[in-house]
Amino acid sequence: MNSYTLEPIGFIRSTVKGREDAPRQGPEGAPDAWLEIEPQFAKALLGMEVGHELMVITWLHKAKRDVLRGHPRSDESRPVTGVFYTRSPARPNPLGLHPVTVRAIKGTRLKIGPIEAFDGTPVVDIKSASTRADG
Amino acid sequence: MNSYTLEPIGFIRSTVKGREDAPRQGPEGAPDAWLEIEPQFAKALLGMEVGHELMVITWLHKAKRDVLRGHPRSDESRPVTGVFYTRSPARPNPLGLHPVTVRAIKGTRLKIGPIEAFDGTPVVDIKSASTRADG
Repeated sequence: MNSYTLEPIGFIRSTVKGREDAPRQGPEGAPDAWLEIEPQFAKALLGMEVGHELMVITWLHKAKRDVLRGHPRSDESRPVTGVFYTRSPARPNPLGLHPVTVRAIKGTRLKIGPIEAFDGTPVVDIKSASTRADG
Repeated sequence: MNSYTLEPIGFIRSTVKGREDAPRQGPEGAPDAWLEIEPQFAKALLGMEVGHELMVITWLHKAKRDVLRGHPRSDESRPVTGVFYTRSPARPNPLGLHPVTVRAIKGTRLKIGPIEAFDGTPVVDIKSASTRADG
């Protein structure tokens, strides 16, 4: 089986330090956080502006990769469901998907939110949230 | 620098064979396609139903990884923009993001669409499109 290698393009710097601080999804009361882009990818930020809506893809480095089913939202009253029909962080390739707004830009640091990702979470991609911004 | 390894959880089987067949984004006239899940991940499909809306994440195996800026939609009348503010397939980690609807399910094969990904594109994750389906 082939495999593919991701490298981090940046990291999340957040007041959310772990599961006990984190809402389950960004819109459920998550804070803003800083996304620090690695210097070698700075050129890929050209055109970024405050107010833009982005899809940020993270690597959920604390998530289990060997879980294929579970109770949605860890709620045992909900039936066991395959992870491909949930947004659980536990999944074979632990990618996180975060719709955010750009709040501020300082050099290669973007203030974004709301985002529930933990402090230190690697970021692997950033895209326009608009399908009209295709390159 | 750390790096992370993805493995394909399935593959796209499509009438779109290459760039000449592909609209730039799914909603722009892309066809439906089959997503064939690898057998070892079949359990992660539990609960999947026709009509569900998903976010499918692909590995854009034909895309360049060393491009940081370009003209959006390859339109030279549009100013050069960083790839992190486009949806260009060319980007450091060539992940594709596809909002789709489940049209049919046959065993471990999901008919999904609309989707512009080429035939043979590896799929690395599938999530509910709803943030209320968190696990």
